[in-house]
Amino acid sequence: MDQKTISSAVIKRLPRYHRYLGGLLENGIERISSNELSSLMNVTASQIRQDLNNFGGFGQQGYGYNVEYLYHEIAKILGIDRQNSMIIIGGGHFGQTLANYDNFEKRGFTTKAIFDVSPKRIGKTVRGIMTYDMSELESWLSENPVKLAVLTIPKQVAQEVADRLVACGVKAIWNFAHLDLKVPSDVVVENVHLSESLMQLSYRIAATEGR
Amino acid sequence: MDQKTISSAVIKRLPRYHRYLGGLLENGIERISSNELSSLMNVTASQIRQDLNNFGGFGQQGYGYNVEYLYHEIAKILGIDRQNSMIIIGGGHFGQTLANYDNFEKRGFTTKAIFDVSPKRIGKTVRGIMTYDMSELESWLSENPVKLAVLTIPKQVAQEVADRLVACGVKAIWNFAHLDLKVPSDVVVENVHLSESLMQLSYRIAATEGR
Repeated sequence: MDQKTISSAVIKRLPRYHRYLGGLLENGIERISSNELSSLMNVTASQIRQDLNNFGGFGQQGYGYNVEYLYHEIAKILGIDRQNSMIIIGGGHFGQTLANYDNFEKRGFTTKAIFDVSPKRIGKTVRGIMTYDMSELESWLSENPVKLAVLTIPKQVAQEVADRLVACGVKAIWNFAHLDLKVPSDVVVENVHLSESLMQLSYRIAATEGR
Repeated sequence: MDQKTISSAVIKRLPRYHRYLGGLLENGIERISSNELSSLMNVTASQIRQDLNNFGGFGQQGYGYNVEYLYHEIAKILGIDRQNSMIIIGGGHFGQTLANYDNFEKRGFTTKAIFDVSPKRIGKTVRGIMTYDMSELESWLSENPVKLAVLTIPKQVAQEVADRLVACGVKAIWNFAHLDLKVPSDVVVENVHLSESLMQLSYRIAATEGR
């Protein structure tokens, strides 16, 4: 399958399909029609058929989708059918929160190490995950190649740290630092800018109030 | 100005304009042309002119934008020029992380209270913010009307809590619980589904590797 032709809008919807199909599986539902899935997910049935056709479609006319098969196929497409190791840069509140989420592991993302600059955090573990000194980043990564890094550090140091990660072979950055990182074209960045999300909510509150 | 005609794509870009303009202000830059802003933000100059024209435009031909004026106008549009009180439902790791962010306050979002069900958290403070028992939610909100609530609770209880919040007059929910909330049409929800963001990163790693 040629993944390059799939629009990013479809890709953005896939995790939600995966979530709903997982819920159906948990409830022992083996088959579902696009109409049923449509009313459950509040998306049109034609949208669902179109989206899933991007991957060759997994349904049969008059028979519906095989929930388990579709769930696993979407997992494969999303790359969560295998283990993804990651490291967290920044062992503060937010880094610790992420390290504590065992839900990520259920989706194949295992945190291997945390890096920090604060002596009070270095040498401590979070859910068994060791916090190392940032100065050990290069040597640690040379022995433990990891492609995915999470940045939960202040924006002032984020670009410099991203450069070091890329130099060590990191290919994907989950960026919570509040800036736009500059990275080579073969490195992917997914931004989560929490205060921008909050601002959109505040816009919508203001707009609703018709101020 | 008629805010209802502004597309959500433009709204999504506004916080980023606000962030870059804030950076310019910090560096003492008073005026900027759309071309300069374009190269800084890696967005076309025509996109910038188009976006800002939605609000009547703030630029003058051959003169550029007044950075401070534009910064404050965008803040007004986003509703962050005034105080927004909020409460956090769920005082676990993530709720505490959000309560600890003083950056939200700089943008006008002040956390007034945390609510939790765990006896080990109730009665404790995070950065001076008290954690109350969830059973006190209704009485607390009747004395302290707050429009914005943050949900950092398990998905199994999120809908029930959202219903209680809406019944108490909450009009906006920043939802970190991993489900789609059902709310009346006058209530706005902004979802941050972290594991879905992580899945998109994993898709892009997998796609880059051409598996």
